Amino acid sequence: MYYFRPSLADLLAYQPGEQPIAGTEVIKLNTNENPYPPSLKAIEALRSINPDVLRRYPSPFAEEFRQKAATLFSVDPDWILIGNGSDELLTILLRSATDSERSVAYPVPTYVLYRTLAKIQSAPIAEIPFDDTYTLPADNLAKASAALTIVASPNSPSGNRIPNDALANLAAKLKGILVIDEAYVEFSEGNALPLIKRFENVIVLRTLSKSHSLAGLRLGLAIANPSLIDVLAKVKDSYNVDVVSAHVGAAAICDTAHTRTNVKRVCASRERLSKKLSEIGFRVWPSDANFILTRPPDGNARKLYLNLQKSGILVRYFDEPMLNDKLRITIGTDNQNDQLLAAIQELTNYQK
Amino acid sequence: MYYFRPSLADLLAYQPGEQPIAGTEVIKLNTNENPYPPSLKAIEALRSINPDVLRRYPSPFAEEFRQKAATLFSVDPDWILIGNGSDELLTILLRSATDSERSVAYPVPTYVLYRTLAKIQSAPIAEIPFDDTYTLPADNLAKASAALTIVASPNSPSGNRIPNDALANLAAKLKGILVIDEAYVEFSEGNALPLIKRFENVIVLRTLSKSHSLAGLRLGLAIANPSLIDVLAKVKDSYNVDVVSAHVGAAAICDTAHTRTNVKRVCASRERLSKKLSEIGFRVWPSDANFILTRPPDGNARKLYLNLQKSGILVRYFDEPMLNDKLRITIGTDNQNDQLLAAIQELTNYQK
Repeated sequence: MYYFRPSLADLLAYQPGEQPIAGTEVIKLNTNENPYPPSLKAIEALRSINPDVLRRYPSPFAEEFRQKAATLFSVDPDWILIGNGSDELLTILLRSATDSERSVAYPVPTYVLYRTLAKIQSAPIAEIPFDDTYTLPADNLAKASAALTIVASPNSPSGNRIPNDALANLAAKLKGILVIDEAYVEFSEGNALPLIKRFENVIVLRTLSKSHSLAGLRLGLAIANPSLIDVLAKVKDSYNVDVVSAHVGAAAICDTAHTRTNVKRVCASRERLSKKLSEIGFRVWPSDANFILTRPPDGNARKLYLNLQKSGILVRYFDEPMLNDKLRITIGTDNQNDQLLAAIQELTNYQK
Repeated sequence: MYYFRPSLADLLAYQPGEQPIAGTEVIKLNTNENPYPPSLKAIEALRSINPDVLRRYPSPFAEEFRQKAATLFSVDPDWILIGNGSDELLTILLRSATDSERSVAYPVPTYVLYRTLAKIQSAPIAEIPFDDTYTLPADNLAKASAALTIVASPNSPSGNRIPNDALANLAAKLKGILVIDEAYVEFSEGNALPLIKRFENVIVLRTLSKSHSLAGLRLGLAIANPSLIDVLAKVKDSYNVDVVSAHVGAAAICDTAHTRTNVKRVCASRERLSKKLSEIGFRVWPSDANFILTRPPDGNARKLYLNLQKSGILVRYFDEPMLNDKLRITIGTDNQNDQLLAAIQELTNYQK
């Protein structure tokens, strides 16, 4: 017997990048984690938690974390909703704004989860193709007139940030909500936060998974006008963020010096890796994130992905139109990136 | 502008019991937390976490915790889905099995979240009244022919466990899924777990929030035939349980001696408090949970709730039909319960 909504029968679950079993020796450049450890202040916060707080339900809005984030972003706390990762905030947005008659639009290729969540919600989907330069297809997105338009900026897997002018023009044209998913924005220059004060239909998403090295804790933030936040808050689970994550996240988000240092190191390594890959004939798209999109000279990305995997190096291959000749490579430490380059050269014998 | 699904405009968010600000001196008997601390082994697990795991995404299925739970419940791991609290598992169930044409049924009064989640999902709702003894209205539930039928057992706020015979009869009659929400089952004799092997449409939910004193960590479990678990897994967020909660939960769930000891203490205090309240004229419903439902002699539960609040004692009052003459009181330590009794006697001058 099949007991569920018929539309789920054919749904393919979102496939996250593979997670090697703990203790396996691999170079993991496939899920855009940060190669450097989280803030020592965050670790101290973890170590010093009073066990008695475990016994009680957490603050429904992760108030300590929310207050700290509000100070940092110069907004009132009611402009912020904390989520169990920004994935949960995306789920809440889809559940709140879309249904079988209220559509979702986003440029492609992008984060595949948007499609999965739209399908779960049975929402009509408008996928608007990027061109080869990943310029925002703003006119076509506006024409789609979706209840919810999602733009990842920097976009994954292309890596480029969308300029605020383009986002502002799009927000002004839309009658629905514009979600700007800024998971990777700390690795770029500038961000879209100023737009939330100009447009009541704009929501910015952030996460502590990338720039703050806390993917394991699941902490995301939605920042928007309270008229939007209030509705999302009705849809979220009562206690969606646990007390430990919220406390550690509050310490991490305040340690801006630590974040800045690690971000700078990652960005420097990104430029170095991009240059070296270009030198051996790879096309490398300019990146504002902690990963790069790159096309091997022969376009056989799948073969290179599988061979790297055999060599103990995980990168991301998407078996999707527009992407199946490319790889997305997370920026590791310089040492890891050098091992990747050595493996690529050995595997492919590409000559300078 | 209103940017959301119209049905959300009138939705009242689920109102969890009030959470006093940290440091406030109150006796908190309103949200069914455990008055005793979690397992020392769980606290050791928290203290000994390797900070490097924070940097990486967690196991998508909280594998360590799932394996331990599988051993404990004598099922294969693919019979279990770990959730961010059992609230998240309920959310996933509603999203998977119901929509505007696939209904939800449950007896009332019960956990109010079922109604909230059904409304968010725009699912038709059949609320089947309990009688005054809170016997399962199995025939009427079966007649509702819902896609998803939810029975809390022990039920909140009534406290009684539903016998397995009654649940089995209902499961056999239903063409949809039967969710048995066993959040409080450790405080009773017996449980419905044997039914998952007999009925492929039965899902049992458990939580570590009550008997394991870990409400702050948000850990729930769904246990069912893999044909059900597999669909729920497609709908859940990729990394729905953070690495710290999963690791601490794995240690806690294995410390069965600690759980058993605390459960026994709570059950003994429950019988003691029930007896004393009965002696001063309160009607007390028999409870298999870590709380009791009770009616003050004059039926003015609201007034007593407010007066207790002024005295620094939080209990739960539901302004709902069938409940607005009753209070739900979480079992505290004997000392807390005695302070409650003293306050009640002072406030009401009820005589023996």
